[in-house]
Amino acid sequence: MDGLDVDRARALTPGCEHVLHLNHAGASLLPQPVLDAMVGHLELEARIGGYEAADAAAPLLARTYAALAELIGAGTDEIALTDSATRAWDTAVHSLPLAAGDRVLISRAEYGSNAITLLQLQQRTGCRVELVEDDRAGQIDLEALERALQHGGVALVSLVHVPTQGGLVNPAAEVGRLCRDAGALFVLDACQSAGQLPLDVEELGCAVLAAPGRKFLRGPRGTGFLFVRRDLLPRTAPVMLDIHAATWVAPDRYEVHQDARRFEMWEYDAAARIGLGVAVDHALGWGIDAIAERDRTLAVGLRDRLAAIPRVTVRDQGERRCAITTFTVDGVAPEEVKARLRAQAVNVAVSPATSAQLDLPHRGLEDVIRASVHYVTTDDELDRFASLVRTIARVR
Amino acid sequence: MDGLDVDRARALTPGCEHVLHLNHAGASLLPQPVLDAMVGHLELEARIGGYEAADAAAPLLARTYAALAELIGAGTDEIALTDSATRAWDTAVHSLPLAAGDRVLISRAEYGSNAITLLQLQQRTGCRVELVEDDRAGQIDLEALERALQHGGVALVSLVHVPTQGGLVNPAAEVGRLCRDAGALFVLDACQSAGQLPLDVEELGCAVLAAPGRKFLRGPRGTGFLFVRRDLLPRTAPVMLDIHAATWVAPDRYEVHQDARRFEMWEYDAAARIGLGVAVDHALGWGIDAIAERDRTLAVGLRDRLAAIPRVTVRDQGERRCAITTFTVDGVAPEEVKARLRAQAVNVAVSPATSAQLDLPHRGLEDVIRASVHYVTTDDELDRFASLVRTIARVR
Repeated sequence: MDGLDVDRARALTPGCEHVLHLNHAGASLLPQPVLDAMVGHLELEARIGGYEAADAAAPLLARTYAALAELIGAGTDEIALTDSATRAWDTAVHSLPLAAGDRVLISRAEYGSNAITLLQLQQRTGCRVELVEDDRAGQIDLEALERALQHGGVALVSLVHVPTQGGLVNPAAEVGRLCRDAGALFVLDACQSAGQLPLDVEELGCAVLAAPGRKFLRGPRGTGFLFVRRDLLPRTAPVMLDIHAATWVAPDRYEVHQDARRFEMWEYDAAARIGLGVAVDHALGWGIDAIAERDRTLAVGLRDRLAAIPRVTVRDQGERRCAITTFTVDGVAPEEVKARLRAQAVNVAVSPATSAQLDLPHRGLEDVIRASVHYVTTDDELDRFASLVRTIARVR
Repeated sequence: MDGLDVDRARALTPGCEHVLHLNHAGASLLPQPVLDAMVGHLELEARIGGYEAADAAAPLLARTYAALAELIGAGTDEIALTDSATRAWDTAVHSLPLAAGDRVLISRAEYGSNAITLLQLQQRTGCRVELVEDDRAGQIDLEALERALQHGGVALVSLVHVPTQGGLVNPAAEVGRLCRDAGALFVLDACQSAGQLPLDVEELGCAVLAAPGRKFLRGPRGTGFLFVRRDLLPRTAPVMLDIHAATWVAPDRYEVHQDARRFEMWEYDAAARIGLGVAVDHALGWGIDAIAERDRTLAVGLRDRLAAIPRVTVRDQGERRCAITTFTVDGVAPEEVKARLRAQAVNVAVSPATSAQLDLPHRGLEDVIRASVHYVTTDDELDRFASLVRTIARVR
């Protein structure tokens, strides 16, 4: 049983007729219902006014919170909407109760933007950022993590669930359990897992989770969301507050809101938020388990095809793998591979070393090409893609 | 000479057929070209992918920076795009070089979100926020400001150009001159002036300016922009950096970009940004001087009509007034006035005291009704509006 009607999913995806899209990890192709919801709301704004349209769309805007809560097993009071996953992650991490000397553990998969934020945090709070090594499979070494936690003083463990520059799935739930035992906060970057893998914050044991709308959730650009666990909320101190996150109760006093709204701002893109809710419902409609299984299978097919091409090397690691595949072509720069594919209406991305300083250089790599499938991808498309890569690898 | 073809402007504004919109200070009505640009880009994203569409639209995205630079007389390297004006203002102000004991001057018009941010800043840096009183007309008292500056130690002066809760225009250029003489940084909140009044950062003498897209510029929701003067840029320390604002050059080191991009983030809503650029060009097309003159005249007409209604009190102050009018109706709560007008497809807003703690309570007021005209407003609409308000004020 496939559990997912691929023909129907493709019929609902206008882009399938125009491009061979293997850049779902960058920004996926919008489903027609998401596009329709956004366009419909923009037209309503033009017709009756921006705030008036938001009032009229209040149930849709509320559904976005409820759909995200459903997606990750959270309460709606634990969800904040932002304009990107990085904004969500940064906003939460800067607000956490960290003191000088607190230890912060990261892994080699740490994403560039997170790493920069942690370096800023180290400077501002005096916390100490420490690297936990990978195991031989390339994922975070759970035994090394356990030892690091046993030394005590760990306030925070940051993990990238699915690294942007590789095909592996880090063992997040196991990390969550170790953090729980050690009393450390577990911050999960779910940028590349939301929409392609089942996420349950209880099971994952994370105190903070951040993800974007535009990637595997197939939502609009300029959207992201943040989960902060209910018991942690009162201990956070958001860096930037406005009249939505707090109330100015007297000239010299404000009160911060108790729920995750403390991480939001008054102004937002209503059409994009509505589109995000529709995208999440679209994903829930197919079923995240069915999506995960299909994505995994497609990616295995892609890796097998790429591995069979002379002068092409698949660069994926990990025990458990997912929809992202990375590779290099001997003698052809990743940007050139990308450009030549783009000329054929085939979309891939380049993962630069500057986004993965602890990982790619450590593996002796610079930039890599990233091809990411999703449930609308077909075997025929993978055949065509492999044939195009074969041509690029051959012609020097 | 009117200089502005109102019939044509209305024909290009779908909302004019559907609502009597006096909420341009909340969110204006989108011009058709702005709507078309946004919808067109969203459709392109659905057709070829989100990042691929942004690449294809690179000239349009670049035009948004250039149009904004043109609007305020800045360089494109001094412009950052954000998802709101508050984000822009907060991001800049949190990054400024402030030390313990530094004096920060504000006026009674200070906006709620800015005030909350300054209270946070006071706690974080030890700076001292001080109030400069209004003059008898209700605008910032320039003599009081000059005296406060003469005492020395003023690092920053924050001014709201046009308060959201009143019809006045603060004398920004005069404030700018005094700040320049005193060596203080001048931060201008242009939320309600961008798009209705000419802005020239040189003439205004401001080091920082922030404004939204959705108000008098008639751009999309979820957009805002920031100007930071070139010579100030290297002295700023943005609180939240990512791989767009900085480059992760080595595991323990990042380099912050030199231009205003340091205040942006990697991910953004491309359709909204493109829409913002089209909106700015639309405004430039009519001419900001022509818009300002028409807005001012319309608002005079609105105030005269309201002042003639029994039990209605216009609450505007200031020597120089603009497109915003505030009023109260004896015995009818502002929210009720707003709701009853909305039932007639007439849009106004309520300015709450919690957004203006230093102003409205000081004037013995709580919430006020805000009616804001713009150049698409007609005298016929003002007649109809006044008639509706008269009915509300009569029926008890």
